[in-house]
Amino acid sequence: MSYRAPLKDIQFLLHKVFNAEENFASMTLSEELSEDLIKAILEEAGKIAEELLSPINQAGDKEGCGFDGGKVSTPQGFKDAYKDYVKGGWSGLTGDLDYGGQGMPKVISALIEEMFFGANSSFCLYTVLTTGAALTINEHASEELKETYLPKLYQGIWSGTMCLTESHAGTDLGMIHTKAVPAKDGSYSLSGTKIFITAGEHDLTENIVHLVLAKLPDAPFGPKGISLFLVPKYLLNAEGGIGAKNNVSCGSLENKMGIKASATCVLNFDDATGFLVGDLNNGLSNLFTMMNYERLSMGLQGNGLAESSYQIASAYASQRLQGRAPSGPEYAEKAADPILVHPDVRRMLLTMRSNILAGRALSLYSAFHLDISRMHPNKKIRARSERLISLLIPVQKAYCSDKGFEACVLGQQVLGGHGYVSEWGLEQNVRDSRIAQIYEGANGIQALDLAGRKTLRTKGAQLNLLIEEMDKFISANNSKKEMKFYLSKFSDVKSLLVEMTTLVIKNGSNNPDEIGAASYSYMELMGLTLYCFMWQKIILATIEAEKSGQDDKAYYDGLIGVGNFFFDKLLPRSISLAEEIRAGAKSVMNATFEQF
Amino acid sequence: MSYRAPLKDIQFLLHKVFNAEENFASMTLSEELSEDLIKAILEEAGKIAEELLSPINQAGDKEGCGFDGGKVSTPQGFKDAYKDYVKGGWSGLTGDLDYGGQGMPKVISALIEEMFFGANSSFCLYTVLTTGAALTINEHASEELKETYLPKLYQGIWSGTMCLTESHAGTDLGMIHTKAVPAKDGSYSLSGTKIFITAGEHDLTENIVHLVLAKLPDAPFGPKGISLFLVPKYLLNAEGGIGAKNNVSCGSLENKMGIKASATCVLNFDDATGFLVGDLNNGLSNLFTMMNYERLSMGLQGNGLAESSYQIASAYASQRLQGRAPSGPEYAEKAADPILVHPDVRRMLLTMRSNILAGRALSLYSAFHLDISRMHPNKKIRARSERLISLLIPVQKAYCSDKGFEACVLGQQVLGGHGYVSEWGLEQNVRDSRIAQIYEGANGIQALDLAGRKTLRTKGAQLNLLIEEMDKFISANNSKKEMKFYLSKFSDVKSLLVEMTTLVIKNGSNNPDEIGAASYSYMELMGLTLYCFMWQKIILATIEAEKSGQDDKAYYDGLIGVGNFFFDKLLPRSISLAEEIRAGAKSVMNATFEQF
Repeated sequence: MSYRAPLKDIQFLLHKVFNAEENFASMTLSEELSEDLIKAILEEAGKIAEELLSPINQAGDKEGCGFDGGKVSTPQGFKDAYKDYVKGGWSGLTGDLDYGGQGMPKVISALIEEMFFGANSSFCLYTVLTTGAALTINEHASEELKETYLPKLYQGIWSGTMCLTESHAGTDLGMIHTKAVPAKDGSYSLSGTKIFITAGEHDLTENIVHLVLAKLPDAPFGPKGISLFLVPKYLLNAEGGIGAKNNVSCGSLENKMGIKASATCVLNFDDATGFLVGDLNNGLSNLFTMMNYERLSMGLQGNGLAESSYQIASAYASQRLQGRAPSGPEYAEKAADPILVHPDVRRMLLTMRSNILAGRALSLYSAFHLDISRMHPNKKIRARSERLISLLIPVQKAYCSDKGFEACVLGQQVLGGHGYVSEWGLEQNVRDSRIAQIYEGANGIQALDLAGRKTLRTKGAQLNLLIEEMDKFISANNSKKEMKFYLSKFSDVKSLLVEMTTLVIKNGSNNPDEIGAASYSYMELMGLTLYCFMWQKIILATIEAEKSGQDDKAYYDGLIGVGNFFFDKLLPRSISLAEEIRAGAKSVMNATFEQF
Repeated sequence: MSYRAPLKDIQFLLHKVFNAEENFASMTLSEELSEDLIKAILEEAGKIAEELLSPINQAGDKEGCGFDGGKVSTPQGFKDAYKDYVKGGWSGLTGDLDYGGQGMPKVISALIEEMFFGANSSFCLYTVLTTGAALTINEHASEELKETYLPKLYQGIWSGTMCLTESHAGTDLGMIHTKAVPAKDGSYSLSGTKIFITAGEHDLTENIVHLVLAKLPDAPFGPKGISLFLVPKYLLNAEGGIGAKNNVSCGSLENKMGIKASATCVLNFDDATGFLVGDLNNGLSNLFTMMNYERLSMGLQGNGLAESSYQIASAYASQRLQGRAPSGPEYAEKAADPILVHPDVRRMLLTMRSNILAGRALSLYSAFHLDISRMHPNKKIRARSERLISLLIPVQKAYCSDKGFEACVLGQQVLGGHGYVSEWGLEQNVRDSRIAQIYEGANGIQALDLAGRKTLRTKGAQLNLLIEEMDKFISANNSKKEMKFYLSKFSDVKSLLVEMTTLVIKNGSNNPDEIGAASYSYMELMGLTLYCFMWQKIILATIEAEKSGQDDKAYYDGLIGVGNFFFDKLLPRSISLAEEIRAGAKSVMNATFEQF
């Protein structure tokens, strides 16, 4: 079964729930984004996902990447698909207009990324890394580097990577060993070994632009001594074309659980020529902007693969005949009823769907704030969105990827043994989605960032902004009687989140271990509250669409049904999350090292 | 890193928590099982796990099984390991003494299975299937078949399979097509295709004994027309040795997510000669005894792999240096602190360990009742344990395999990117443990069995037996002040379980959909309550051991610490499970087929 672009759900969210045109109209965009234009772009992207990427997804997993004499070959079909992707102009979608990009808002590309990840996560990674590298170059590099590299990256002729991790330094980048020695011509000579480099070497583009973290010989100790360098695979000749091979080589490919068609490389830098990006010793903070975008992508990957699994599992459940409905045969003329009659099968599918819709909405909500933070004419509004973003992103990354993985596991479970064998693609989705919880900062790190840096350190100021948004929604809709039930559930969980925030700040101020001990449950509680917020918005839009007499009542009723399931069956988890937070750090910290 | 047999924890549970010798002494066993003898057996089994099975686990996953011209080859090293396993006499451990078995209780073999599954799940499956087939033959086959087949199965010279599933009939076995036509000599001629047959074909034994579900041409419709047949790969000659090849052939191997060294076969029966086992049309109920044992094994698999992941993850967390403890450096002389200082890393490890210990205890508790139900001299006590077992097994199977998978995922998360690559073995554990939630009745089916057949149909009578056991424990220990805190938590969750049982029975009596809609949360609530019960027993034994002035205080304190974590951080989930049950079936059943 191949992936189908969920355009109907996407259009509904974009236009009915988030009033995209109004939102875009308030920003400074390069061109007016009408509903028709957006529709055309998304439909075209949907076709790429369905017709170009999905067909080579399973074969790519099976074949994996080849490695021979330092050269990496992508699986059959990837090169052709990439050519078509580039030809369609997708690689520069959100790029800076001044350097040949198309200046589209992140909202649009987020939806496209979700589809591409859902159809073929391995393929999508090659493109996402390029986007991230281009973003970083555009934000921090010199005009010369920007002019030299951005147009080719936006055209997709060259691709990008982020080279951060070393074998002994993952979460703690302050420990990296890679050295950058200044050369006389203003460039640097880089030496060291980086691991887990996505798209570090491959055969899709004529050049690869590595962004590499390294330290100068006399750099300050720890994270404050890290600088960022641009290190191309091929140096450029005087005309800006491909010149001599730089001293970067791929030592090996990682053998891993999933995303097998994505080349995860060990990269060796042996006196490779690099160019400083941004200020010396400011490498880590130069990555912060990019990281919000990359992390958003990981949540989108979880959601995209969840959608893919939902499509397969729900179709299977409608067709697979086994047993009879609990209250007697529904299809007496058939040998058995479709398994969709069984409440527990529905539980699995509804869990998937209610989290997919809320996850997509949360990703859009975050992407809107990313766009506002860059493209709104009002500085105060930009700054406000920036602060909201710094709170939303760790939750979107961790919670959407957690719920995405959970959905992939549930989808597999719907198919039973048929979900465990490779044929239906569901086990691949489980393997492919698993990485989204790990890379770009493992989800535990996101939770710690949320509870520590974003909450404790700001004394809850950032959360207050989000609560303002929620309260605004509640007071705007409090008088609508159809919303009463939903708003009361929302108010409850919102109050619980506020109560827990106060508690976490109080406990954490006295004892830093309290932050880490509460962080994961706190992140989940915020994720659940945000999903609840998103469901408020969806249900409101649904009720308004029904009232305005629009067609498609079955679709809207279906959405409300999925929402009801969320409130009945998923939201109650908030109560026990609060209990886990209240329990504090004692039982977590008590054990000695030897007792583990 | 290779698997280490968790003998210390096992011995503690067996002797201090479950008073194994006393328990065994009350049964009619073939030989007295002293603590020393048990210790010797378990140590020997531990060596097999560590030295024979663990070393070929990763390579077996990588190589997988070969398939050529209908022949299946197991990965390198499997044949030799199997020879040693057989030579050690492990294959007939629980077998009937009258046919050359060793008559050991299930309690002992359950612990051994957990270790073998933990060290090498693929290998262990070949042996578990043989045990299950032998058990079924011993319970239901004619004396002639027993004399012919059991000794060879117990010796491990021949192996066994269970051939149930067909491509269109998994959960609903009533739909199977395989036909059995009576022959003149009293045998049957079987034709049909079975899928997902574990160990259906391989090169470890000289013969394979298939137990096959099939229907006579005039059999009643549905599950009541199914009979069970013994179909050997090779027919036997007059001397009982290997004779002509029977008409059974392996059509292909499944390509699957994990347990790649276990051959999962499509088996074709083309007028294959078979022998009836038990009464005609009674095939399904002939499998019931065996199923309790097989399901116990799947819970053990989850727990065994969880233990393996815990060992690797906790060792990694003690050694991996990244970042600093929240309250300042603990190892200032090192470049960074081990990640075990971080509360969230501890949360993951403690979640794993507290569920592993409780899961092992629940498996032992179930195994004791299996043994009592067969080997206690008092008929009433046997019958009581049998009823308890029918309640315990679906929970043990589903909850231990769910928590086992969860633990493998958490273990992988502790290692971050290093958990996603194959090197450390953690991603293999995730893939290998996933199947335990699916086969031998998917966990949703276990939950339905628990809530429907075992609870609603008996109007809660079986649960009352379990509650009796719990109340007995509470009143026996109520006066111990060290137990006060724990017992009060236990009483709370027990009351909640009783309340929810009453609710499920009440709602389910009016509307059958209510059972299925509540079933999964109900199973989880019972699993959590049982884990809580097990933790009561563990903590009591720990307190008593400390009081009696035994050494190893650090070990006992460690156990209490893990228990405290369970009560603080995992038990609260019960509150939201109850809310999910209370929410009822409405939001689950409302959606139309088209809305999925």
